[in-house]
Amino acid sequence: MGVFDSGLGGLSGFRHLAQLMPNEDILYLGDTGRVPYGTRSRETIIRYACEDAGFLVNRGVKAILVACNTVSSTAMDTLRSTFSVPFFDVVTAAVRTAAASTRNGCIGVIGTEATVRSGVYGRQIRQIMPDAEVWEKACPLLVPLVENGRTRPGDRVAEIVTEEYLEELRDRGVDTLILGCTHYRMLKDVISGCMKDAVLVDSGAVGAEDMAGALLDLGTAADRSRAGRHTFYVTDSTEGFEKQASIFLETEEHLAVSRVDLN
Amino acid sequence: MGVFDSGLGGLSGFRHLAQLMPNEDILYLGDTGRVPYGTRSRETIIRYACEDAGFLVNRGVKAILVACNTVSSTAMDTLRSTFSVPFFDVVTAAVRTAAASTRNGCIGVIGTEATVRSGVYGRQIRQIMPDAEVWEKACPLLVPLVENGRTRPGDRVAEIVTEEYLEELRDRGVDTLILGCTHYRMLKDVISGCMKDAVLVDSGAVGAEDMAGALLDLGTAADRSRAGRHTFYVTDSTEGFEKQASIFLETEEHLAVSRVDLN
Repeated sequence: MGVFDSGLGGLSGFRHLAQLMPNEDILYLGDTGRVPYGTRSRETIIRYACEDAGFLVNRGVKAILVACNTVSSTAMDTLRSTFSVPFFDVVTAAVRTAAASTRNGCIGVIGTEATVRSGVYGRQIRQIMPDAEVWEKACPLLVPLVENGRTRPGDRVAEIVTEEYLEELRDRGVDTLILGCTHYRMLKDVISGCMKDAVLVDSGAVGAEDMAGALLDLGTAADRSRAGRHTFYVTDSTEGFEKQASIFLETEEHLAVSRVDLN
Repeated sequence: MGVFDSGLGGLSGFRHLAQLMPNEDILYLGDTGRVPYGTRSRETIIRYACEDAGFLVNRGVKAILVACNTVSSTAMDTLRSTFSVPFFDVVTAAVRTAAASTRNGCIGVIGTEATVRSGVYGRQIRQIMPDAEVWEKACPLLVPLVENGRTRPGDRVAEIVTEEYLEELRDRGVDTLILGCTHYRMLKDVISGCMKDAVLVDSGAVGAEDMAGALLDLGTAADRSRAGRHTFYVTDSTEGFEKQASIFLETEEHLAVSRVDLN
């Protein structure tokens, strides 16, 4: 199976998938040479996503998890019409989970500029819940905060920025908040502090559960007698990969990683 | 002449150059599809810089201003050995200006992770001022703050983050601070607020002055009877270019911009 992301945020989706399907070989591609995608144009995101998926398809993966909300909300139609392997994204499962969780029909979505600009979350939520009130908010400073380790409650900068972004959603009565960017789960304690009793939906985790469930249903899961191998590819240097990866994997184990050129 | 940068920050260097040499045709390339460079590895920065410079050389420019501190501090040796056009960078002139300005020999340098990791500023300052005390500090959150418009005095987040980064430099007695990233000039009022009486050296502006002076000395400047044409190239979509560019150019004029593919 293949998993890709604009960078290393998708490793949290990978980690969930590896726990749910311990017998599967998984290839992870992080486009660290061109991260972030969330501030780029639609055309560029689609072009990069096709190069990422093409790399994994050429290595023979049988299904792909798009572990990046920006790509999941922008490029799925193009990916599905370009490649014949099944794709799973991190939007669809988050929408279903949020719709099942909300009590008052008031759902918030936070994500990158590209994810919010796409409007995909709002459209998908209203498809299964036509009366839902959906409040979407781009939070462009949260990714740099996470990548600089500013994630703990008590970090004044993380708290001020998060409060500025979430104040309106809280005041609108949002009772379920979709973390529509894989980085945001690292800030979940700070976000919870702002959102009081709202349920937080971790899009990376539920996307991985969705894929694992579908593959088990289809009977295409791997032989249970062997442990899956994990292979990591990045497009920037591999130097420093383990240190950064440990933020999202929450492990210190040694990881085999190679640099690849997508062009 | 050519000017390139990882993104649009180099437009402030371009603006200075266009004012100093109003008769020159200037091509500006911003690698907006892969910005930022400052968090990437040395090898990737060098590879991207060669692709940027190659694009301008293929269009026949007679000299190139590397309007990006990350590239200026990481890739100049490779650029000069790969291409035969003269290159000007934004480090050399900033070093000379800072050495001429300091009264106590205590110079601070702020920049991206890649610029500080290179150690180029410290080495170049000590070459012309062996007894100088140089304090270099990577400030990775300042670029996202500028790009999100968080630049004004009174912005609590900008003030807290800037104070955290600069506190030590101020306490060390730095009397001259090199803004070793073209984005930082947008934060100069907040930075001045932290640094009291220190002189701020704008590396983009002094780099442009250095190039203009050298070309005038060499007698290779353009015919004075005509106005120079300005052409802009970016690697992400051109959509939204004028709005973002106006931050650095401080003008609302219409700009001709094309998207190009460097691969």
